[in-house]
This record gives sequence, structure tokens and C-alpha cells, in this order.
Amino acid sequence: MHVLIIGAAGMIGRKLTERLLKERKLRGQPIEKLTLQDIVQPQEPRDKPFEIETRAGDLSVPGEAGALVADNPDVIFHLAAIVSGEAEADFEKGYRINFDGTRFLFDAIRARKYMPRVVFTSSIAVYGAPFNGPVKDDFHLTPLTSYGTQKAIGELLLADYTRRGFFDGIGLRLPTICVRPGKPNKAASGFYSSIIREPLAGQEAILPVPDTIRHGHASPRSAVGFLIHAANIDGAKLGPRRNLAMPSVSVTVAEQIEALKRVAGENVASRIKRVPDPVIAAIVTDWAEEVEAKRARELGFEVEKTFDDIIRVHIEDELGGKIVN
Amino acid sequence: MHVLIIGAAGMIGRKLTERLLKERKLRGQPIEKLTLQDIVQPQEPRDKPFEIETRAGDLSVPGEAGALVADNPDVIFHLAAIVSGEAEADFEKGYRINFDGTRFLFDAIRARKYMPRVVFTSSIAVYGAPFNGPVKDDFHLTPLTSYGTQKAIGELLLADYTRRGFFDGIGLRLPTICVRPGKPNKAASGFYSSIIREPLAGQEAILPVPDTIRHGHASPRSAVGFLIHAANIDGAKLGPRRNLAMPSVSVTVAEQIEALKRVAGENVASRIKRVPDPVIAAIVTDWAEEVEAKRARELGFEVEKTFDDIIRVHIEDELGGKIVN
Repeated sequence: MHVLIIGAAGMIGRKLTERLLKERKLRGQPIEKLTLQDIVQPQEPRDKPFEIETRAGDLSVPGEAGALVADNPDVIFHLAAIVSGEAEADFEKGYRINFDGTRFLFDAIRARKYMPRVVFTSSIAVYGAPFNGPVKDDFHLTPLTSYGTQKAIGELLLADYTRRGFFDGIGLRLPTICVRPGKPNKAASGFYSSIIREPLAGQEAILPVPDTIRHGHASPRSAVGFLIHAANIDGAKLGPRRNLAMPSVSVTVAEQIEALKRVAGENVASRIKRVPDPVIAAIVTDWAEEVEAKRARELGFEVEKTFDDIIRVHIEDELGGKIVN
Repeated sequence: MHVLIIGAAGMIGRKLTERLLKERKLRGQPIEKLTLQDIVQPQEPRDKPFEIETRAGDLSVPGEAGALVADNPDVIFHLAAIVSGEAEADFEKGYRINFDGTRFLFDAIRARKYMPRVVFTSSIAVYGAPFNGPVKDDFHLTPLTSYGTQKAIGELLLADYTRRGFFDGIGLRLPTICVRPGKPNKAASGFYSSIIREPLAGQEAILPVPDTIRHGHASPRSAVGFLIHAANIDGAKLGPRRNLAMPSVSVTVAEQIEALKRVAGENVASRIKRVPDPVIAAIVTDWAEEVEAKRARELGFEVEKTFDDIIRVHIEDELGGKIVN
């Protein structure tokens, strides 16, 4: 079993790598080789229970995709993307990486004439307001960002290439991943994590939106769980509709803060400062408040039950169980 | 007012050309120039009430799109496409013309930094079974052909480029156009027209599917009406959701035949021979039986009221009012 992770240096890519190093198998077979690729050189793991190859490269440069699949990896995780804020700020870069890069990869696989499982990370950014209650699985895709447009196009290609028999693809519409460890990235959703992460580390955090705003979240651990489950699942169960909205925990910002108080105490929660930012508020208002994800749940994709659980996962996985009270 | 029609040599393109030659205005302004482009040289009209330019070219060849928009046409009708059957048979050709060609055009307009109205013909092939009753405007796009995939991608690009302010686009999901004049094309939907067209001309026609199959139709005259209305409409009325399912007359094949009997008599209808073709039956079963098109109707897009009307339009527009009894 040879596994390729494209976008391996990102947060999810690194956590997926850790998990594969621990589990040492995928699709019921032992992993013999793991290739880690990203635009920057991915870090080589210290423990190497199997062959590890790291590779820096730009998926949007012709030839890179072909080189990546030259030895027919059995499972390909395609996580590489320019994030929403940057894809909006730099139109051409977003289309080059998220659109051309994805197409180059899919065409490179097609040219190899074999049948890998391809797991593609899409996003709830494929949806755009107005919504009429919780987003159902058959709700249309009307993205309101170039990032969401590029992800929706990737989904369409994935479904058609799968239908054509060029590979066996599954696309996952990830919810907002919370609590993201480390520094904020350029995503407008960054505050959802920082209002939990910074207070738990003894630092102040800024809340730029009203606390009535509702949104769906999943922990990084759950996101990795989605990817592993998507790699393992029997493709025949999906039929031709290969793109699935992933489950999430839908809560208001007020409910996030209440959960933080329950898990870590009033003093920690008091480190959240309200500094309204109408630009960020306008962006997040266009996002789905709740995504039903009925099909994904039926297919066995699992997420935390409460936002308290999401906070506890962060404390366990990132803080070694310790918080600054 | 300079109008550009890409795909002008096709059936809809020729009828749109005729209509513009007759009306001599669009968006309330007199037409000064009409450019007709296609992969084959479009026929030059006999009457030239304004400047006519014809041009043969391949939209998927770099440079062609740029040349087409070099003098900033005010309204661009993008009708060019490889049809469903051919796009399914020739994967690379379909993607090259329907996908790359459309993107080249949109990028060429973006590079000009002006704001034309772009009318793009999409198709109900963007929908794919299973359906849950009539298709509503917020139903998701899960095409089951490469053609439908390419059209859905064109729609997404059109909406994003419009949102970005690169042009003012409207995409129209056309129903099956019936009665198509002339010879059958490679579309699996061809029989819907031939079971009307051939009997009216005194010839036998083959019905390859059970007559319980239901489907939505619009006449070529209505299709041209959709295009003209899309060119004229105030874009602000659409908001960011720029792709609209067009109205159609939803009837079973049995109802089509009953309408033919009413309009042309039993003898004409008796020229339909039943020769089941399971391949065609399987394809058309994947298509929507009925598309609600609520938004388009509210925005003033109009179609025939009955299938009898659709037959009468064919007799008027194609047969000079005469049928072979």
C-alpha cells in the first residue's frame, strides 16, 4: 500500500501523516510507502515505520502531477489548496493552484490508466447564502467566493472522472476546522479557533462578530478521521454522487463561549474581547449556519457530539492536557 | 450595439441570427454590427441591415477568444459546444471545447476590462437522477455525463467572473429543444424531435423508448426568445445566482403523440414505429422529467403552454404551414 499526500505540510496534512505513521495501515493493508508532497518541503518524520519520501513541488506546474503518480500510489489524498482569503485576494493564483493544479492531478492519474482511491478535500464554501434552514445534501452549489467556485469545480471533475472509471474518487466538504492549532491563517474563519485557542493559552483573543452567529465545526482529529474513513470506504456505497458534506457541530458563538466556560472556567473565557469587524461579520454571514450531512452520517463519517468535546480534543491533542487558568 | 454570436452556425445560432436581423435592436439599442463565429464558416445573411462579420475559428485554440473580443462586443452569446453524445464519446474533445474554450473566452473578456453582457447556454444535463419530483431551482447539480459536467463548470465560472465584475453573465439551462429542424444530431434526445418532424413530412420515425417517459420541451422559437430575454434583462434582478433553469412543457411521449394526432391527424401519428432501444431508454431515464423553473418564469422567460403549441410552431416556422397528411 503506497499512500500519497499532496498538501502534506499543511495542518491537516501533518496530522494525517501522524495518524498514518501510528496506524501503519490503510484500506486493511499495511502501508509500505508514504509520499509527502507540498509547495514547501514537508518535514520528514522522526520515526519511519515504512519508506517515507518527501517532495517539494508546485502542482500547477506541468509535469509535477505526472511525477507524483509515476509509481501508481494506491491512495491519493489531495489536500493542497490556496485558502479562501488568499484565493479571493489573488484571483490568478487561486485558479492556478486550486483549479489547474487539481485538473493536472486528475489528468495525470487518468494517463496512468489505473484505479487509485482519490480523497479530495472540498469545503462548505461551495455553498452560498441565502439558505433556507439547514443545508440538505441536495442543496445547490452557489459559491460566493472564488475559492468555493474552485472547490465546486474540483468536485464536478472528481465525479465525472470517477464515473468515467479514471479513478475512484471521494470529495469531502469540510466544515470549519476548530480548534486550529498554531498561528491564525488567512481564512476569515480564523477567529472561531482563536477565541478558544488563545484564552486556553493564557492570551487575549478578539471576537469580531456578534455572538448570535451560528456555524458548524469539527476538530482537526475529526477531519483526519473523515479522510481515513473516506480512504477506507467502499466506493460502491456512494453511487455516482461522490461529493459529501461532512458532519459538524452547529453552535452559536455564544454557545462556543459557554462551552469554554464549562470546560476551562470563567476566567479563561473572560480573555475574549469583543472588537466588531463588519468585514469579517459580512463574510461569515454568507456561510451556512448548519449543514445536515445526512448521507455522510449514514455512511459512517463521525464528528464530536458537542462543542465541549471539540475543546477537550484541542486540550488533549495540542496542550498535553494543560490549560492556563 | 455590437453583438457577437459564438456557435453561430448551429441551429439555435442561425435562428438567433435571423431574429436579430429582423429586430435590428437589442437591449433597447440599434444593432450596428453582428459578428458570427463558429468552427465552420457561418453563412453570410442575404439581407444586411447592419455590418456583418463572419469568422471560422476554434475557441479552444489560444488567441481565438482574444481576437473575438478585441473590439469589445457589447453582448456575447456563447452557444458553442460539443453536444452530449459526442462529448461522451470523445472525452478530450469535449473538455477541450466545452471547458477550455469557455474558460478562454471568459479570460479573454476579463483581460479586456470592460463589462459586456454574456449569455451562456447551459443545459438540463447539469442535473442527474435520482430526482425527487420536479427539479426545483435549488436542486444540486450532479451531472451524469461529461457534457453536463462541462456545462456545470461553465456555470460556476460564469457566476464567479460575474461576481468579480469581469462581465455581466447569465447562464441558461436549456431544456430539450423540440422540434429540431433538419437532420438528427448526435444527441440521445434526437427521437423527441424526429417522432414529430418525420411524420409531419410524410416519413416514418422510430420511437426507441416506452411512451410513459416524461420530459420537458421548448421550441427553437422559445429557445431564441430565452436568449433575447437574457440579453435584455436587468442583471441586478438576478443577484449572485446567475444560472437559471429555463421553463419547458413537461409531457410524456404518449402525450406528445396525442398532441400530434390533435394537430395533424391520426394518419400522421401512425408513421411512428416503436423500436425499443435499451441504451437510449437508459440515458433518457437519467434525465429530469420536469424542471420547475420558478425563478426564470418570475423573471419573464416564456415558453409554449402546451405541446400542441410546440408542434404548431414547427409547422409555422419550418414547414410554411404545410404538412403531409
